[in-house]
Amino acid sequence: MIMNKGRLIVFSAPSGCGKGTMLAEILKDDNFYCSVSATTRAPREGEIDGVNYHFLTREQFEKNIENGRMLEYACYCDNYYGTLADEVDSKLEQGKNVILEIEVQGAMKIRELRPDAMFVFIVPPSIGELERRLRKRGTETDEIIAKRVAAAANELTYAQKYDYIIVNDALEDAVSDFRAVIKAESLKTEYAAEFLDGVMKNA
Amino acid sequence: MIMNKGRLIVFSAPSGCGKGTMLAEILKDDNFYCSVSATTRAPREGEIDGVNYHFLTREQFEKNIENGRMLEYACYCDNYYGTLADEVDSKLEQGKNVILEIEVQGAMKIRELRPDAMFVFIVPPSIGELERRLRKRGTETDEIIAKRVAAAANELTYAQKYDYIIVNDALEDAVSDFRAVIKAESLKTEYAAEFLDGVMKNA
Repeated sequence: MIMNKGRLIVFSAPSGCGKGTMLAEILKDDNFYCSVSATTRAPREGEIDGVNYHFLTREQFEKNIENGRMLEYACYCDNYYGTLADEVDSKLEQGKNVILEIEVQGAMKIRELRPDAMFVFIVPPSIGELERRLRKRGTETDEIIAKRVAAAANELTYAQKYDYIIVNDALEDAVSDFRAVIKAESLKTEYAAEFLDGVMKNA
Repeated sequence: MIMNKGRLIVFSAPSGCGKGTMLAEILKDDNFYCSVSATTRAPREGEIDGVNYHFLTREQFEKNIENGRMLEYACYCDNYYGTLADEVDSKLEQGKNVILEIEVQGAMKIRELRPDAMFVFIVPPSIGELERRLRKRGTETDEIIAKRVAAAANELTYAQKYDYIIVNDALEDAVSDFRAVIKAESLKTEYAAEFLDGVMKNA
């Protein structure tokens, strides 16, 4: 069953769930594209416009907001961050499945704006395991880890608003689950109307 | 994510779609069970009660109807055929995914009675291909083939009332699609409430 347009996939996970590793694996498949966020913060050394972020001036960003061209946005530390509708739609038109890697509040805004989107939430096997993973990195202080664990617990309360829950216990299984979800979504009857017409007509 | 109860899967396909071959492949997995229909027709030579059919007397069958113990039933050539609720529910309780291989009218009755069921419709690549497959068998007259093709075209108009459409072009792909659908259904958030509780509690 050929789908001409890609699917919009909102992909969220608390910090420490291995989201980055999962995405790297998923993006090995050319049919997937991870949306690049827009921001007004200055590029850091080595960051490339259009790859790490779309770097916009405050005026450009606010114009996009006014024109309804931001699917979601938020302001942190005096800088805007958000998702450009044009960035997403142009890739969908090219037939790519577009992944939005965003946090729960942004995801809930997309839920209102885009009924075509599907929502996937990645969870750790347990909060205890998440804490162990964060500690294992060895890069954070106890205080930061406690904050991250509390943030993760808070984000998990949003999990129920997503369509699918995938546990990232073993990377391979989690990626395989993700692929099953994408495949099953493409087999949903609502995407098959055109195909069914073809079945009836083609001798 | 462990689901204690199995899923009820309604599985329909026009004749000539390779449904039997698909089911044989799916049923190699012990987690799946194909429900055995009940009937009032006499057993044919070699048929075993509880394997080919549950053979019931007319009185037994009608008592099941009265008591609301038939999920669906129909009368062909003066004999009843149908699905016993107890047969289905006992297997679901054992954790098996129960497949009901039934035609579209029966499926629509299940839709009303069982909101827990998922509905999968198998389609041929095209009506022309279906006709070629039926001819290839070489067992049917032109008249019978024409009737089957017309029946298939009619059944296909019900496809849109199912949840998922799977094209049986290559058997392996069709079975793989089916497995993806089952996996994705098990990852739906509505089945994850208990699991999410566990994530939060388990340290």
